[in-house]
Amino acid sequence: MDSIHKLESELASLPGIGRRSARRLMFHFLSSPEASFQKFIHTLSEAKNKIHPCIECFNYAEDDLCEICSSPRRDKSILCVVERPQDVIAIEDSHSYFGVYHVLGGVISPMEGIGPDHIRAKELMERIEKGNFQEVILALNTTMESEATRLYLKSLLERSVRISELSRGIPAGGELEFVDKGTIQRALLERKS
Amino acid sequence: MDSIHKLESELASLPGIGRRSARRLMFHFLSSPEASFQKFIHTLSEAKNKIHPCIECFNYAEDDLCEICSSPRRDKSILCVVERPQDVIAIEDSHSYFGVYHVLGGVISPMEGIGPDHIRAKELMERIEKGNFQEVILALNTTMESEATRLYLKSLLERSVRISELSRGIPAGGELEFVDKGTIQRALLERKS
Repeated sequence: MDSIHKLESELASLPGIGRRSARRLMFHFLSSPEASFQKFIHTLSEAKNKIHPCIECFNYAEDDLCEICSSPRRDKSILCVVERPQDVIAIEDSHSYFGVYHVLGGVISPMEGIGPDHIRAKELMERIEKGNFQEVILALNTTMESEATRLYLKSLLERSVRISELSRGIPAGGELEFVDKGTIQRALLERKS
Repeated sequence: MDSIHKLESELASLPGIGRRSARRLMFHFLSSPEASFQKFIHTLSEAKNKIHPCIECFNYAEDDLCEICSSPRRDKSILCVVERPQDVIAIEDSHSYFGVYHVLGGVISPMEGIGPDHIRAKELMERIEKGNFQEVILALNTTMESEATRLYLKSLLERSVRISELSRGIPAGGELEFVDKGTIQRALLERKS
């Protein structure tokens, strides 16, 4: 039963899949009809083959340009800088941004040997130099590495373009009792009258 | 981005995978190196191709006979009847049974149009007639359909072989406060002095 054990440990190595879920998925695949199994493999392989980084913003794309960069309805004068394609989806799901994006592909992390050259900072500079952006929004995460990256990009860009950042504060639906100390400090510091 | 949406909904249709997990898996596959992606596809396809029902007990097997049926160390005089291959693994994991199995492949469910002919009851009868079993353990689940199936098998087999069943009661580590009414009724009814 070598192949069944191999499959189970392969499934258990997927992100967010524990041992029980891996076993459940394994039995699902083994018992599913051949046609739907082949459909699964086909859908997975097709996406893997077709999807590549957009040549403009490095978001996932099926053609040279992603859906956002190729859309005539997007405002090409505002640029939102994010870490990963996941973040593009999160912002798109909020239905509150209509500009274009720049996906860095990571953050600077000296501990992991990721320097400024490993994220798409040079490409960002080039876009801003040749483009005509009114505003660049730095929409990075709030971990330590992301903060360092944000400061680096800020120093790199602030002479050439107007920079803005996402506001920080109490999350929507959040109760003060359960909000962490750092968030409350920030919300107080940036309080509005 | 047709292929990315197709992949997301294909992943979200897997058992136990919600929308967030599906998205996480999707980004994992899209960003994983080509070699490890191919390894995943290969492991999955190989298991699907190689694994089929054991010709003796209908558990999953790589050869004609499964690991349990082909093992000289298993007691071929005790037969444990279970619903699905999952149940074989659950019992094997308990390290407390050393006989062989018979996997029914389901339970009788008139609502879903599954009659006695759709589960491997005939094959069970044939095994018991030609085999030399001292005891048959009916290790079915405790849902209504499983109960009906258990009663059906009991009436079918009780003249040809000694039948036993798993004991019912408070689960190991269970606290009375949180155990359901039916289980407590059963545990009182079958109390031991």
